[in-house]
This record gives sequence, C-alpha cells and structure tokens, in this order.
Amino acid sequence: MAYETIDCTVTEGVGTITLDRPEAYNTLNDRMAEELPEAARALASDDGVRAIALTANGDAFSAGADLGALSGDGSDEARIRRIAAGLHEFVGQLVRAPKPVVTGVDGVAAGGGLGPAICGDIVLAAESARFEFAYPRMGLCGDGGSTYFLPRLVGLRRAQELVFRDEPVGAEEAAEIGLATEAVPDGDLGDRLAEEAARLAAGPTRAYAAAGRLLAGSFGTPLETQLADEADEIAELTNTTDFARGHAAFGTDESPEFAGE
Amino acid sequence: MAYETIDCTVTEGVGTITLDRPEAYNTLNDRMAEELPEAARALASDDGVRAIALTANGDAFSAGADLGALSGDGSDEARIRRIAAGLHEFVGQLVRAPKPVVTGVDGVAAGGGLGPAICGDIVLAAESARFEFAYPRMGLCGDGGSTYFLPRLVGLRRAQELVFRDEPVGAEEAAEIGLATEAVPDGDLGDRLAEEAARLAAGPTRAYAAAGRLLAGSFGTPLETQLADEADEIAELTNTTDFARGHAAFGTDESPEFAGE
Amino acid sequence: MAYETIDCTVTEGVGTITLDRPEAYNTLNDRMAEELPEAARALASDDGVRAIALTANGDAFSAGADLGALSGDGSDEARIRRIAAGLHEFVGQLVRAPKPVVTGVDGVAAGGGLGPAICGDIVLAAESARFEFAYPRMGLCGDGGSTYFLPRLVGLRRAQELVFRDEPVGAEEAAEIGLATEAVPDGDLGDRLAEEAARLAAGPTRAYAAAGRLLAGSFGTPLETQLADEADEIAELTNTTDFARGHAAFGTDESPEFAGE
Repeated sequence: MAYETIDCTVTEGVGTITLDRPEAYNTLNDRMAEELPEAARALASDDGVRAIALTANGDAFSAGADLGALSGDGSDEARIRRIAAGLHEFVGQLVRAPKPVVTGVDGVAAGGGLGPAICGDIVLAAESARFEFAYPRMGLCGDGGSTYFLPRLVGLRRAQELVFRDEPVGAEEAAEIGLATEAVPDGDLGDRLAEEAARLAAGPTRAYAAAGRLLAGSFGTPLETQLADEADEIAELTNTTDFARGHAAFGTDESPEFAGE
Repeated sequence: MAYETIDCTVTEGVGTITLDRPEAYNTLNDRMAEELPEAARALASDDGVRAIALTANGDAFSAGADLGALSGDGSDEARIRRIAAGLHEFVGQLVRAPKPVVTGVDGVAAGGGLGPAICGDIVLAAESARFEFAYPRMGLCGDGGSTYFLPRLVGLRRAQELVFRDEPVGAEEAAEIGLATEAVPDGDLGDRLAEEAARLAAGPTRAYAAAGRLLAGSFGTPLETQLADEADEIAELTNTTDFARGHAAFGTDESPEFAGE
Repeated sequence: MAYETIDCTVTEGVGTITLDRPEAYNTLNDRMAEELPEAARALASDDGVRAIALTANGDAFSAGADLGALSGDGSDEARIRRIAAGLHEFVGQLVRAPKPVVTGVDGVAAGGGLGPAICGDIVLAAESARFEFAYPRMGLCGDGGSTYFLPRLVGLRRAQELVFRDEPVGAEEAAEIGLATEAVPDGDLGDRLAEEAARLAAGPTRAYAAAGRLLAGSFGTPLETQLADEADEIAELTNTTDFARGHAAFGTDESPEFAGE
C-alpha cells in the first residue's frame, strides 16, 4: 500500500509510523483509518522490526475523527463505524504486536487521537502536548481504546474527571498521573523518541513482548491464571538466545547483546 | 412511596436524594434500605431527570448500618442481608442509571455509608468530610460496593491500607488519592453540588451515560471487547440530537444546547 | 519438613517465614522452592496462626531465582518450571490464606523476589530496600505474581515503566507510588514488622481475610457480582464472636478483644 496520510519507515530495527495530515490536525479520515492498521500489521509481522514508534508531523498529534467528513444529520453511523473499525484494528495491532511500542506526543491528542497517543508501553509527551477526552463536546462517548486505557493508567476517579469535566491535561500533569511516562522539552521529542525506540529495539524484545502481554491482560485475570501464564511465558523464554546471552553476561562487566530471539 | 428517611426532589432536570436521619448520623435502618433503591429507581427511569445528586442532611454523610437495630447475639444475619440488599440495589441503580451521578459528602462517610459516598461519577468532599472503612472495628468486612470502588479509585495498596489500618481519610487527601474528585470549602458544598449537577444535567447526558458504562466495566474487560463496545456505543450516538448539535456548533463560538437525546 | 533455606516460627499468633540464604542473596533454588509453599500451607491452615509475616535474613530480601543453578544453554526449562511452580504456590497460599499477611523488605527485592515482597496486605520497606523488575536483563519476563500485582498496585503506566525501563525503586518512592505501604528506618524494620503483625493477629482476622479476598478479586469482578459477594461475606460474619464483641464495645470506651472466630 502506498500511504497518503501517514509515513511508515523502518530503520535499524525501529519501525516508525508518523501521522501526516498536519494541515488537518492529523484527524482521522477514511483513508487514514485504512492505512493505520495496514502499517501496524506490516510492522508487527516484520521480524526485522524490533520496536515500533508512533508520532505525528505538525502542531497536533491528532484531533480525532475528521468532523468535516461527517454531516451531523443522522447519516454518519456507517462512516463512524468504518473509521472506528480502522482505528480499533490499529490500536489492537499495536498492543498485541510482539515487540515494544513507544509513542511521542506533541500538541493536542484529543477524541479518537487520545487512545493511540496513550496506548504505548512508553509514552513521551513534549511539554506542549495536551491530552483531552473531548468526545462529550460532540455528544459522543469515547472510542479508540480511551475507555480501556484511562482507568488502567490513572485510576477510575481521574478517568471520570477527564470524561465528566473534560479539561485538557498538560504534559507535566500527564506524567504525574500516569497518562504519559515522561514529559520532555518540546525541541527534544524527536531525538528522545528515536533514542527510546532504539534502546527498546536493542533489548530483549521477545521478553518485553511477553511482559507487555502479561501486564495488558492483568486487571481482568484471576491470580492463579496470571501465575500460570507467567510460568508458561518465562519457561518458554529460557530457550531463547537472549536468555543465554543475559545469563552469560550476568555478574560480568559486559552488557548482553540481545537478538530478540 | 412517601419517604420517611430520605428526601427525593426533582428540580430543573436534577434529581436529588438527601439522606435525612441526621439525629442518627444517617445510619441505614430497614426503612432507609427500602427507600433508597426505590428513589434511585424512580430517578433513573424518569426521562425528565438528566443528572442525579446524592447528599445528606446534618453533620454526617452516613455512619453506615444502624447498629442500634442489631443485637450482636448471632441473630442479625437476616436483617443484615435485608439492609445490604437494599443498599446494594441502591448503589447498583446509581451506577447503572443512564445519566451522570454526583455525590456531595460532608462529615463522616463510614462503613455502609462509604460505598454510596464514593460511587458517583463526580464526588465533592467538604473540607470536614471524613472517609472511613470502619468495618473491622465491628468484626465485619466491607459492603455497599466499597471493595469494588476502593481498588479502582485509589489502587490496591491504598485500598489495603484503608482496610487493614482503617484510619480516616480527610477531604484533601481523599481528593489527592482519588476517593473524591475535589475538596471544597465546608460552606460551599451545597452550592457546588447544585452547580455541578446542573452543569451535568445540561450536558450530553446520553453520551455521559455511555462513557460512564464503558469506564465502569473497563477493568474486567479484554481490550478487543472494550473496543467493540466503544464502537457500538459511539455509532449509536451519531443518531442523536446531541451529536447533531455538537457537530453544528463545532468550530463556531456557540456552545451546543444539549437535549440528552 | 525440616527447613534448610528458610526459618518458620510461630509466636503468639504470628507465623513468620524468614528467607535464610543470606550468603546467596536469598535467591530461590530447588530447595527453597519446595520449602516456601510448604511453610505457607502450614501457617495458612494452622488455626493458632492469625497473621503471617514474611521477611529475610541478610542484606537482600531476595534477588530472585538462583542463576548459578541455571546453565543458560537451553536446558533450563524444566528447572525454571519447577522453581516457578513452587514460587507461585507460595504466593498463592499467602494471598489465599484466611488471615492477613505483612511483608518486611530490606535490601534488594528483584526478579522472582519481587512478587513475594509486594504480595502482602501491608508491605513495610526499610529505607535501604530496593524494588527491581530485573527480568529483562536476563532476557526474561516477570513471574512470581509480579505482573499481577504491579498494575493493581501502581497503575499500568508505572508498571510499564518498571518493566520497560527497569530502574530500581527506593523505599520512599515505593511507598509514594503504592509498591509499599510505608517506608521505615533501616534499624526499625524488625520491630515494626513484629508490631504490625502482632496488631493484625490481635484483630478481627476472619473479617480481615474476607475483606482481603474481596479486594484481591475486585478488578476482574463485575459490580453486581462483587456486591453479592460482599453481602454473603458480611452476612456470615454476623454470626462470629468477633462481631458480637465489636457490637458490644461500640459506643463504649472499651476496645473489643477479638478472637478471630
């Protein structure tokens, strides 16, 4: 697929998806809703990609669905379903990808842009980033995984405050309450995102993926089932090259060189 | 039903339930355990009510079950079951009501009074409010939804601290850790509660209800199911008057006038 | 069973398990993985034991699995499975024991040592305690319940930070974010642990156990089910001696003397 609304590149083990409709605040239109899951699937299944980075060109991360493409007259249901389907396939692919995901957020991440912004294993927020639920202003509820991630990340009370008061959250506060992992200076976001993605890509990516899966499913899983899942995952990882290298380096001054296999 | 232990009024789209046994610290007796779910059901199903407020008369929000009505001699099981059944039907009706709920807490909210105090989408705590688990002092465990809400609101560790150390939490701390949304000056609670309820009642209440349902079920729901639920809810909302009005107002200086339909 | 790698004592209603391989940083070997669940089962089923304390001798709480006992050459799967099985049975017994559990953590709690350190109803951390996920350095994911407890205790974002950045967390920060209940001065850990365990053992331990069960299962349980579980547990507790004593002492200056039955 030749992408029109996004960029998708692979460099030294890092696959990067960049939202690229800056003139439209990177809002989701029909085309972007097709391209995003396509790109995520491609990176998730590419063995040469060991970490995925998600970011955006321009002043906004993403302002959500493209409202200009909607009529507001009761005829939008099919289009909203299509856009949500693409957005949800995208978020699902990122979370289920067998490799770590880091997002870099600058400007506004609102409505349908909020879920993708916060779905990463690590979320870097530029100082000028602004997280907003925003749906109620349109008479809508959340999508894009926002109602999945918000309570898990910031607790139910803060999630309710974001929904029922709908005030924007800046980068510092986002890092404090757990929407973001860290706030970084505006000019540094690109470099910091590249660094973090490179670090993750050079790490034990199969182990990261297993740990990510275990964390993602944790809240809904009974203790005994989670323990059994942990045992299965860790036992399987003892057969990897990465475990052999980690074991060999233990207690030495050397850092293991992980292969992601 | 003519209420004896509570007040229940409807004014300009806001249904307000006020606990009204101030001489008994608004403790739950048999009668209150019948009246609370009855009132909640009435407000939940009244289309003219677009937001529900819960508060209390007197110095306490509620000190829980009426211990004077219990004998402590091993003959209380049936009565406790009846009171818990009423209390639980009440909390369930509030959480499932297709409209937002705001609580206003002044004085002590302890034992069976804790769950109702913290079950709102928004919880305003007067400075002199005091949240206490309190059950262990009686040799009892939690009810009223307290063990449902506490870990979701404040995390498992803080919930355990509230249970196993059982120290009172003041309003400021409650707002900090997520028991309450906000601490307000003692004299302002009534006005602030009325304002917040009026604001919610004038909002996109169907959208609020959908978002509230999605948040409430989130922790126990797998990602893919939550995404599918979000898609269904948001698609349905595109057919509402509120979406049409939100869409029309977008990008203008006007605020949409939401109808809750 | 005569224990070689741990101590297990019962004094005045408190059962204490002490990891006792200080020369090996209390790492888990085959023997310790057999002894821990055995000791936990014994204390859980001993009616004379009303609270369980878990701590460790030496400079480390536990550095996880004994890496010296592993070859790193792809032949470790069976041994890791055995050690994880013992560790998981241990953690499961502690969480399901019908009595409260308090842990006292000094020095490093890393890898397979992390889950046991944080699984208590109350967790006391000496100032020099250090909590580390540590698995990725070995090319491994979490076990020991770490992926169950971390998101519940500190939220998903902080849990991801612990996993994907893997930096040690000191005692003060641990208490702030919810890994630990409280940070205590290094020299005081033993006394404070004994005090806290004695306080819990003198409390309404059946009620504590019921509340602990309700909190542990809360995140994965729908509201209506949690309410029904609460009603069953509290109704049953009205038939206990502890409820009778709590009820009799209510409103007096006396503290009830709880019997745990």
